[in-house]
Amino acid sequence: MKIALAQLNYHIGNFEQNTKKIVKAITDAKEQGAELIVFAELAIGGYPAKDLLRNTAFLKACYASVDEIAKYCEGIACIIGAPVPNKDAEGKPLFNAALLLADGEVKQVVKKSLLPDYDVFDEYRYFEPNPSSNCIKFKDLTIALTVCEDLWDDDGPNSYVGDLMQDLAKEHPDLIINIAASPFSYTHFENRKNVLSRNVIKGNAPLIYVNQVGAHTDIIFDGRSLALNRKGELVSEMKSFEEDLQFVELKGIDLHSEQAHQSVEHQEIALIHDAIILGLRDYFQKSGFQKAVLGLSGGLDSALVAALACEALGAENVLSVLMPSIYSSDHSLKDALDLVENTGCQKLILPIKDIAAAFEATLAPAFEGRNPDTTEENIQARTRGTLLMALSNKFGNILLNTSNKSEAAVGYGTLYGDMAGSLSVIGDVYKTQAYQLAKYINRDREIIPLNTIVKPPSAELRPGQKDSDSLPEYDILDSILYQLIEKEKPYTEVIALGFDEATVLRVNKLLNNAEFKRFQAPPILRVSPKAFGPGRAMPLVAKFSF
Amino acid sequence: MKIALAQLNYHIGNFEQNTKKIVKAITDAKEQGAELIVFAELAIGGYPAKDLLRNTAFLKACYASVDEIAKYCEGIACIIGAPVPNKDAEGKPLFNAALLLADGEVKQVVKKSLLPDYDVFDEYRYFEPNPSSNCIKFKDLTIALTVCEDLWDDDGPNSYVGDLMQDLAKEHPDLIINIAASPFSYTHFENRKNVLSRNVIKGNAPLIYVNQVGAHTDIIFDGRSLALNRKGELVSEMKSFEEDLQFVELKGIDLHSEQAHQSVEHQEIALIHDAIILGLRDYFQKSGFQKAVLGLSGGLDSALVAALACEALGAENVLSVLMPSIYSSDHSLKDALDLVENTGCQKLILPIKDIAAAFEATLAPAFEGRNPDTTEENIQARTRGTLLMALSNKFGNILLNTSNKSEAAVGYGTLYGDMAGSLSVIGDVYKTQAYQLAKYINRDREIIPLNTIVKPPSAELRPGQKDSDSLPEYDILDSILYQLIEKEKPYTEVIALGFDEATVLRVNKLLNNAEFKRFQAPPILRVSPKAFGPGRAMPLVAKFSF
Repeated sequence: MKIALAQLNYHIGNFEQNTKKIVKAITDAKEQGAELIVFAELAIGGYPAKDLLRNTAFLKACYASVDEIAKYCEGIACIIGAPVPNKDAEGKPLFNAALLLADGEVKQVVKKSLLPDYDVFDEYRYFEPNPSSNCIKFKDLTIALTVCEDLWDDDGPNSYVGDLMQDLAKEHPDLIINIAASPFSYTHFENRKNVLSRNVIKGNAPLIYVNQVGAHTDIIFDGRSLALNRKGELVSEMKSFEEDLQFVELKGIDLHSEQAHQSVEHQEIALIHDAIILGLRDYFQKSGFQKAVLGLSGGLDSALVAALACEALGAENVLSVLMPSIYSSDHSLKDALDLVENTGCQKLILPIKDIAAAFEATLAPAFEGRNPDTTEENIQARTRGTLLMALSNKFGNILLNTSNKSEAAVGYGTLYGDMAGSLSVIGDVYKTQAYQLAKYINRDREIIPLNTIVKPPSAELRPGQKDSDSLPEYDILDSILYQLIEKEKPYTEVIALGFDEATVLRVNKLLNNAEFKRFQAPPILRVSPKAFGPGRAMPLVAKFSF
Repeated sequence: MKIALAQLNYHIGNFEQNTKKIVKAITDAKEQGAELIVFAELAIGGYPAKDLLRNTAFLKACYASVDEIAKYCEGIACIIGAPVPNKDAEGKPLFNAALLLADGEVKQVVKKSLLPDYDVFDEYRYFEPNPSSNCIKFKDLTIALTVCEDLWDDDGPNSYVGDLMQDLAKEHPDLIINIAASPFSYTHFENRKNVLSRNVIKGNAPLIYVNQVGAHTDIIFDGRSLALNRKGELVSEMKSFEEDLQFVELKGIDLHSEQAHQSVEHQEIALIHDAIILGLRDYFQKSGFQKAVLGLSGGLDSALVAALACEALGAENVLSVLMPSIYSSDHSLKDALDLVENTGCQKLILPIKDIAAAFEATLAPAFEGRNPDTTEENIQARTRGTLLMALSNKFGNILLNTSNKSEAAVGYGTLYGDMAGSLSVIGDVYKTQAYQLAKYINRDREIIPLNTIVKPPSAELRPGQKDSDSLPEYDILDSILYQLIEKEKPYTEVIALGFDEATVLRVNKLLNNAEFKRFQAPPILRVSPKAFGPGRAMPLVAKFSF
């Protein structure tokens, strides 16, 4: 039996476009002789649709969309993810389901059993879990049809009561199918392969895994759908960060691919790069915007964001704004101009001296007798933020935020100043990773000026300022932050790893004290297993000593 | 048996202070002859502790705190809420539990069965639900001990599978105890009374309900703990928005209060007022801040916030900043100054003309040939935001945001401008409610100048501007918004209620288009059943037509 795997990029709530895409894939697959086509989890409606799942008009559109798609399922069957109503009197009003469509109608419904509720996931908010599940029959096949997390019953903090795959295995399935909406992080693919292999062994059957591709604000789906044979070996790996339609053959008792599987090696930093490009592109495309604006300081972070934006949106759609102050060094302006030349983006130079002077003059009576401090530095940052937003308002360019994760972690940024923007492009990229990313971008030719990469980082908000004056060196800072954030370790355990106690205490305090700033930060393209934003929910008013 | 109800204000993560408070209540209750004292849900650790519940050091501190408190439970028993570890190999690592402490140790543990996951609640993120529960024995009593949501098994979208109270009723309890952390909204008390009465009937036993009091950033607990007799009548109602310790007597088969129950009538607007005062006070106290700053325009919203802040923090701690522009009317300045005089708060006048001119001069080459539009209005708003933040940075005053819910809904506000601030004070109060609140504040004497209340609302960002130029009248706007937000109705159903179709379409579009702005708004003191913020999660990049 020939089976098509349809890895598509959906747009939440855009039923017309999504349905058109899905129908086209069904038609193509049928033409190519497939008997079954598999789409991703919640392909209907898009994921994460969040509280739109509480909107009855949205749900009606989902149901209508299913009916429409079913009409095209003649001579080919389709497995697709959709919300379905809970018709019992009790429990949440919806199930997260996999539907089998055939002969023009919904033939079978399998409801998701294991609902993730951690990090960016909040499925209990909307869905009732399925207390028990069975294999479905399709033609002469017994299929263990599962939805994403159904296969992720790990040990540890995200384990679930019961053992779904063990139960399904009792029915001796011929095939396991998992439809997924499994977001990218740079560690996730290896986990995913391992989890799928374990399920192949447990279920004693080959496995087809179809993931979503595409970005929804902060959440990026990498696609990279897979087929595994009975040994748990990859027979097919689909494209990363792109739509794809591929076919596998279920022959005898195992899955085979038309082409021999080519193992693709992906460098971690290349994955992060590709994820950000997709994140940027989809943010603009799905919002209906074309042009971006950002502040270009001559430093690493803004150069990186400018280069990424030029690649994602086209250099002609990127406006880089140089806003030198009296503290800006000559090389900053030159480095920024070099970047403009290397990328071919638009540029504008707006010196902030006069505006900063006007702020200081207006505030002089109120500040009489007080020494300059970070207040004046913040005024510069907010002046720049206001100029960038003015350009955004006047010309419709979307402001990109250029803060990195290390800065966001320790609060080394000005709210409403350099923390402004509609989307944070590298807010989930530590400074040490930002250097790697810059080198990766320069792999073929110098795009990010070498001087931007080698000079010591500085916010240039006062004479001779360097990041290392007020922060530990970035390799140490990032290592400590990684333990506190990604590993969720209390500071005592981080000290026990051998880091300097005073430094850990200071970094932990900075991290906790900046919670209120991050609350107002733009959405951040998530590329790590633990990004700031909804996936890391911390109380703001609390006594932190952990 | 004399039973104490301890309604306390906890501080998340502040174990030392919380434990001291709890121990004092135990000691006081014991001295007054109580045999049992009941505290709220998650009194240990505080609620909502969010992802601190994933921090092992935080959890250890919770467990140590329980052991410490248990030592004081000699000659008196205590029921208290705490997270407890899930010792099974499967499921989430914690339960949300009610502990019975007696004879210096933990005697019994009852785990919460029904975990709320809607609006601001996300308990599945942290806790495993208890699949079945039993009554506990204390002395010769059978007690149906429950945790908050355990009694909220409604019909409708928040119903749960099974019927916990019906199961517990089979054991013929002598008493139902519910420990709660049930946030305030202006509609919640009536619901709560009804739910508790229904459970009294269902469980055929009197009921003691102990709620938390106090605010945690956006979430405000109103306290107002209750005791109900077997008929479902109130025998005791504790203070609203204040700590309280009261006693009830379980005599024969029913509960009695020492004093006859005085039914307290609370006007809705008075409740909102008191909730905001507590929200403000706790935000400052629990963060360790004393002083506030805000922009005072002469309009209703900022006057209201100034008056509320003066009441909550003391007028001497409130700095009102008047920032007139060339478009400000004379009466605005006068109205603002009247408010300053009426409240006795600090004031500062910082005209923004020169700064706005410096911005426009700097931008002139870039804006050549373009007409003035909202860009220039936003520059004024952001100039004010920057001035306020400069004062905040220099003097340590916390910036209060003065936007109301109607504005936040339709995006009638400038990001990083009038949307700036650490806390939104009236962001869950519609404009029409803001007028009521102003009148309530003026109930004894004129605090908010009459002219501020009667003049037509205007942002004064261009000559002669009025809110009604670009928005429907507020009574219509707010009625439509209420249906879309609180009632979560799709726009088609709102039109069906009889509102003008074009107006509903426009308002719905404005509401959806402002999602990205609200994402970066400060936390909002929640007083309604559906506030903007984490309780209303919407995708940003989506096609909205619902």
